[in-house]
Amino acid sequence: MSTAQSKNITPRARDFAAWYQDVVLQGDMAEPAEVVKGCMVIKPNGYAVWERLQSELDRRFKATGHKNVYFPLFIPESFLRREAEHVEGFAPELAVVTIAGGKKLEEPYVVRPTSETIVGHFFARWIQSWRDLPLLMNQWANVVRWELRTRMFLRTTEFLWQEGHTAHANEEEAREEALRMLEVYAEVAEQVMAMPVIRGVKTGAEKFAGAQRSYCIEAMMQNGLALQAGTSHELGQNFGKAFDVKYQSKEGTLEYVWQTSWGVSTRLIGGLIMTHSDDKGLVLPPKLAPTKAVIVPIYRKEDEKDSVVGAANRVAADLNAKDIAAEVDAREGYNPGHKFFHWEQRGVPVTIELGPRDLAAGAAVVKRRDLGVKQSHPLDSLPEVISALLESMQSEMLEIARARLKENTVTASTLNEVSEILSTATAEKGGGKFVMAHIKDDPTCDAKVKEFRASVRCVPLTDHYDGPGKCIITGETVPHRSVIAKAY
Amino acid sequence: MSTAQSKNITPRARDFAAWYQDVVLQGDMAEPAEVVKGCMVIKPNGYAVWERLQSELDRRFKATGHKNVYFPLFIPESFLRREAEHVEGFAPELAVVTIAGGKKLEEPYVVRPTSETIVGHFFARWIQSWRDLPLLMNQWANVVRWELRTRMFLRTTEFLWQEGHTAHANEEEAREEALRMLEVYAEVAEQVMAMPVIRGVKTGAEKFAGAQRSYCIEAMMQNGLALQAGTSHELGQNFGKAFDVKYQSKEGTLEYVWQTSWGVSTRLIGGLIMTHSDDKGLVLPPKLAPTKAVIVPIYRKEDEKDSVVGAANRVAADLNAKDIAAEVDAREGYNPGHKFFHWEQRGVPVTIELGPRDLAAGAAVVKRRDLGVKQSHPLDSLPEVISALLESMQSEMLEIARARLKENTVTASTLNEVSEILSTATAEKGGGKFVMAHIKDDPTCDAKVKEFRASVRCVPLTDHYDGPGKCIITGETVPHRSVIAKAY
Repeated sequence: MSTAQSKNITPRARDFAAWYQDVVLQGDMAEPAEVVKGCMVIKPNGYAVWERLQSELDRRFKATGHKNVYFPLFIPESFLRREAEHVEGFAPELAVVTIAGGKKLEEPYVVRPTSETIVGHFFARWIQSWRDLPLLMNQWANVVRWELRTRMFLRTTEFLWQEGHTAHANEEEAREEALRMLEVYAEVAEQVMAMPVIRGVKTGAEKFAGAQRSYCIEAMMQNGLALQAGTSHELGQNFGKAFDVKYQSKEGTLEYVWQTSWGVSTRLIGGLIMTHSDDKGLVLPPKLAPTKAVIVPIYRKEDEKDSVVGAANRVAADLNAKDIAAEVDAREGYNPGHKFFHWEQRGVPVTIELGPRDLAAGAAVVKRRDLGVKQSHPLDSLPEVISALLESMQSEMLEIARARLKENTVTASTLNEVSEILSTATAEKGGGKFVMAHIKDDPTCDAKVKEFRASVRCVPLTDHYDGPGKCIITGETVPHRSVIAKAY
Repeated sequence: MSTAQSKNITPRARDFAAWYQDVVLQGDMAEPAEVVKGCMVIKPNGYAVWERLQSELDRRFKATGHKNVYFPLFIPESFLRREAEHVEGFAPELAVVTIAGGKKLEEPYVVRPTSETIVGHFFARWIQSWRDLPLLMNQWANVVRWELRTRMFLRTTEFLWQEGHTAHANEEEAREEALRMLEVYAEVAEQVMAMPVIRGVKTGAEKFAGAQRSYCIEAMMQNGLALQAGTSHELGQNFGKAFDVKYQSKEGTLEYVWQTSWGVSTRLIGGLIMTHSDDKGLVLPPKLAPTKAVIVPIYRKEDEKDSVVGAANRVAADLNAKDIAAEVDAREGYNPGHKFFHWEQRGVPVTIELGPRDLAAGAAVVKRRDLGVKQSHPLDSLPEVISALLESMQSEMLEIARARLKENTVTASTLNEVSEILSTATAEKGGGKFVMAHIKDDPTCDAKVKEFRASVRCVPLTDHYDGPGKCIITGETVPHRSVIAKAY
């Protein structure tokens, strides 16, 4: 049996989790690495999507003045203990190297779960004067967090990400930076991934371990669950103090720097899949699809083959010449139905059917992956037709996801109401909701919401539902509603 | 004190190792991470060079049909033991994770030193039929080998690399693949890095642990030492048998696959530095330089500043419009001499001096990094002049390195002669040699050469010095001369 074997996908309505796993596997995106706990292998289609995401992000990081660097994978265990909240947050999830080169290490190394500590150590070496600020760095790396419950892309013990690390002379500049990078994330999510997000502030209970304030982008999956898709942190002077990162100000005084850190990971791909894919498999927004169009030549008799495959190759060449990555599926031994099924499951935005009769008419049948509609077009119009189609598909996918987010966002005025909405409209039934409610940023309020197996996702920074109102738990007045939802 | 502080570089003739370290540090390429044994931080200039190398390599991997994927960082310890030579080669250098998530692991994980074993495990899952072959994959990743003596870029406990892994239906196709990728490496070394290499076959004693045959590219550093810059291995059926990777042939029989693996790493950057840099610091071939030209505006009086900086910005814009990455160094508080020194140390191929008198004459003084020659050119000719200059610089750097390789390659007919050449022309004196001698591929011969603190680098695949001759140790006839040299 060939790896090209096909398998049907569990419908979303029957079992959303099984559907997700099927889409990931059949879409050639990833596969669980059962022999390494909680890890996955990222397969060709998945890695190609990641490369496109990297390139979109990296371009924007560079345009905002950041330089890429690379810090060691290993961090001395003692480094983590220097920032009290940080070690408390990460200690339970660490993978620890205790033996190296055949000997027990005097001080164990942890495999980085994130790099604020080792970055702090080097920032202290590199920063002396106000002239060295702001220091704007980013690294593309793998990190390890020993999670109990894992799911491909969404939560794996090892994952790929980027982590930005910056140091600034004052709190205002650090805040501007954290918000600037949050906006970069939101832009890539919406304009590239066609995944609408809410830009928000995390509660104190939900913020990054060691941060002063965490910003996030939250997306809504097709089942109504929330996914934290990216975070950007104001670290304040916490790591500056822990690692003694000081600079001489213009006035000659010694000051601790103000830092930020921000990251997105391969988790984005999980969000991408759960935002757009359908019961036939993967659906990719054109901007992230490694191959935009596949042409399937159709013929019954051997003597039709040459002319049809020849024409298919010419169509592919025309498309590639217009920067529309196209391929011909001329594999022997698979029927056209199988081929369409294959490319549909892999999320290719456009498939083109080209048979002897089409060829005689100088046309081909173009099918758009998301809507499933077919239409015949003259062969020489294909580059223009498909270019326009890919643009519509990109913007319509965002609109559909936006409409879904809007439709499944409701308000609540009491804790009972929140509880009722979250328990009736369960995610399993495909009806999870974002509940907008006034709630105080206080650990006891977060804990109360956790009782419904939900969490306070964030207080939106923009697009507020309305102004001040009374906290549904304490009754105190808070300035805006928060998003409460079940989440991945 | 700012990080922009300058430090002179130890001359090569005085201490080559100290010179190398100074060039790496002052060139903003990397810095030792003393708190993590044998690791380094790759700094902005070094990482930007790595990104360019990655892009040149990755483009060629894709053009030859390879798909990028990502395998887990951790490998079950038992996997390594399945291939006897492989575990023997790598066991002494492993970093081992024994604790994760607060618990002792039942089976420890090693941090990958290379991925043949875990790849073998997955290839067995993915390959069933001849239709699945060839399977052509590559991954960009970090690996860890616990080395005792480390040196930035050349040998670090953690390093960045790519590793290609492929499976084929027969030995011939596997051999073609291994040689094809060796040629990709040689092309990038010569045409992009301007670093001439010898394409060769390793001896049995020097081959990759677990390979049937290893090919390599060997480069000569300025001190005459050899550097293994890339390797490509025919793995035969060794890992196929260890991991039970079988396919059904067209004839219906079950066969083990034939595999290859091949890799280059951040070590290339060490080779790049030791091939081209000089006593003033880094010299980068234009194709790898992140910034091709820096314009330094020169003015004494405040009223000259606006016009000079304005003109410098226009020159930069003209260059960037022609895809020549250019920057203006308009930093305050640093004199022009300091700025030239700064950019020279960082290997910027071209610096442009622009003062009020140049501006009045409609000209600027252009300095080429490698030769140090200065020449005045009309402002409006700069894009063409500099474009041509970068091209000459790229090809002349290769020619100079080729001449050096030729000049320092000698022949020897006896073991005594080899010993004498290697002991008098020591690398410390900047006169290491490649000694071409007939020597049998036999571990006892390798061992004999090791007595001179040298090694048999390879038997060249092309550009043989001559035909068959008698082994300088056993007297047996061997088909070609090998390269014997001291090496990093």
